[in-house]
Amino acid sequence: MNGLEGVVAAETKLSMVDGEKGELVIAGYPVAELALNATFEETAHLLWYGTTDAADFRRDLAGRRALDPEALELLAAAARKGADPMDALRMAAGTLGGTSDDNAARNLLAAFPTIVAAYWRLLHGREPVAPRADLGHAANYLYMLTAELPGDQRVRGLETYLNTVVDHGLNASTFTARVIASTGSDFVSAVVGAVGALKGPLHGGAPGPALDMVFEIGQVARAEEVLRRKIAAGERLMGFGHRVYKVRDPRADVLAAAAERMLGPGNALYDLARGVEAVALRLLEEAKPGRRLQTNVEFYTALLLHGLGLEVPLFTPTFAISRAAGWIAHCFEQRRANRLIRPQSVYAGPRDLRWAATPA
Amino acid sequence: MNGLEGVVAAETKLSMVDGEKGELVIAGYPVAELALNATFEETAHLLWYGTTDAADFRRDLAGRRALDPEALELLAAAARKGADPMDALRMAAGTLGGTSDDNAARNLLAAFPTIVAAYWRLLHGREPVAPRADLGHAANYLYMLTAELPGDQRVRGLETYLNTVVDHGLNASTFTARVIASTGSDFVSAVVGAVGALKGPLHGGAPGPALDMVFEIGQVARAEEVLRRKIAAGERLMGFGHRVYKVRDPRADVLAAAAERMLGPGNALYDLARGVEAVALRLLEEAKPGRRLQTNVEFYTALLLHGLGLEVPLFTPTFAISRAAGWIAHCFEQRRANRLIRPQSVYAGPRDLRWAATPA
Repeated sequence: MNGLEGVVAAETKLSMVDGEKGELVIAGYPVAELALNATFEETAHLLWYGTTDAADFRRDLAGRRALDPEALELLAAAARKGADPMDALRMAAGTLGGTSDDNAARNLLAAFPTIVAAYWRLLHGREPVAPRADLGHAANYLYMLTAELPGDQRVRGLETYLNTVVDHGLNASTFTARVIASTGSDFVSAVVGAVGALKGPLHGGAPGPALDMVFEIGQVARAEEVLRRKIAAGERLMGFGHRVYKVRDPRADVLAAAAERMLGPGNALYDLARGVEAVALRLLEEAKPGRRLQTNVEFYTALLLHGLGLEVPLFTPTFAISRAAGWIAHCFEQRRANRLIRPQSVYAGPRDLRWAATPA
Repeated sequence: MNGLEGVVAAETKLSMVDGEKGELVIAGYPVAELALNATFEETAHLLWYGTTDAADFRRDLAGRRALDPEALELLAAAARKGADPMDALRMAAGTLGGTSDDNAARNLLAAFPTIVAAYWRLLHGREPVAPRADLGHAANYLYMLTAELPGDQRVRGLETYLNTVVDHGLNASTFTARVIASTGSDFVSAVVGAVGALKGPLHGGAPGPALDMVFEIGQVARAEEVLRRKIAAGERLMGFGHRVYKVRDPRADVLAAAAERMLGPGNALYDLARGVEAVALRLLEEAKPGRRLQTNVEFYTALLLHGLGLEVPLFTPTFAISRAAGWIAHCFEQRRANRLIRPQSVYAGPRDLRWAATPA
């Protein structure tokens, strides 16, 4: 009862998750078809407006990237306290606004990479790097993190990741955004709420531990020994299994292909991850026959983001940079046929207590 | 389907709304019993911890009221832009934190009145007034707004209001808080999301328009003429009717009694409101027989808060000062028997689009 599992809360044209078949459709496109071909701006434009002619949109977003001095000061204060990057993102996103839903939507999407990159640099004692309007959304994020122009392969790797995880049915953060939007509140409020939900460890999409396991193993030859020990000890193998997908998560294949392309042939980390994956799948089938535990999106997300040079605390904020486009698309969709989302509770307490006079 | 109407999403011991009977139970007490007797700190303690011995709790909260210089600077920047007081509350609440759920809960509850009062003064070009630890939660809020010590009757009036609206089943903002908490995220994130939802005009609890109508009428002798005209024109009479209550909203009686006590016998505004109410109920029954449209909580909220000297833009933030205790109580309750809240969507779009190569 508490989880609303299986309860339908919205009709959507944004994405379809078929966990039994291992299919994910995003705005009509199978995930691989979209993720490997579109720019991130094209993906966001498609989700928000239904078409892919995103040239004007791309230019417009590029002009909205800079943060107010007050937002930068807020991030600096958060960095002095060592705040979690997701808390910093939530705080700075909350200072944004807009003269209309569409205006707020664009300000939010454009500013997310600036916030994450600026905070990361401030947290490490470095000055933020101002955004460059001549770069695309993905390229500019990498540029603001490193102060160096990224190569095409790395930009394409990041863009494929951003496209792949942009939307995934009514996950908890997307649902949060729709509930807030359903009250008629503004998109900044909705997206700030969604950031808070995405931060939760039960939300899913935390790829750090999968990478830790790969590094712990270190070489393919050690994989069987380490993984057998973990399985015997009842440990969960991070990066395998998913609440919804009963077969292979279709996003894993897209990200594996993107990682291979980006890292190049013979890359040691890629080969290690592939080797660990093969052993893990074999041992899982042996230990839990019929459970069909498969590699999930976190495993290759970790590989791809690590290959891009991102440290683990940046993984969830980078996920948010992508998913923001999905949250906002759901806000637009909720607005178009709105009805307040307001379920019921059942009461399980007493009903007629009397207040005892406070002793004098 | 979009509204989850009638779907049970949580079991709770915090409040029970019986719309058919016109009953509201809060933590086991009928609303009148609790609201007219408890201090606000006792009500919050009861909802969070199940008991009413709130002396230590009251002292502890009083020590957590002051805002960081960064939060005050953020409010000053928001005031320069003329931000909505609910946006300012959402922003400043988002800068709070805590070393544990309980710690964050107390920091949030204690700081809400400080944020609202400081922002109100900044918005009107006045310096914020520092909180006083020797005053109770309600008294200190009035003190920080006006820089004057409020009389006992006014404090008791506000406290009755804060107790009356502290919790009301799974309304949209409370549901938002539970969804965010269900991911395992922190209480600041949950409460910030709830503030964003409460801001929405469809949330309910916007008492400004009810007061506008009373003032427009101006004297009881004009009520019949003005109200007949409005009903004939198909206008909704603000302050009457409720989505859930089919009989009289039990909160209206509590707030009417509190307003009468606070304003004193023969108060012109109170008599006007009562007179308008009587005419409105008679004309509504005449125009829509059997619809049982009754005075709702907004009507007497407006009277009470106006009687306290609060201007209309402070009504929803003052509601939030109360409801914060309810949101946090739901977060604690969600934590105790947690399950991720994650409903489904149904897909209504195409499934196999192919990406067209971008023309060279």
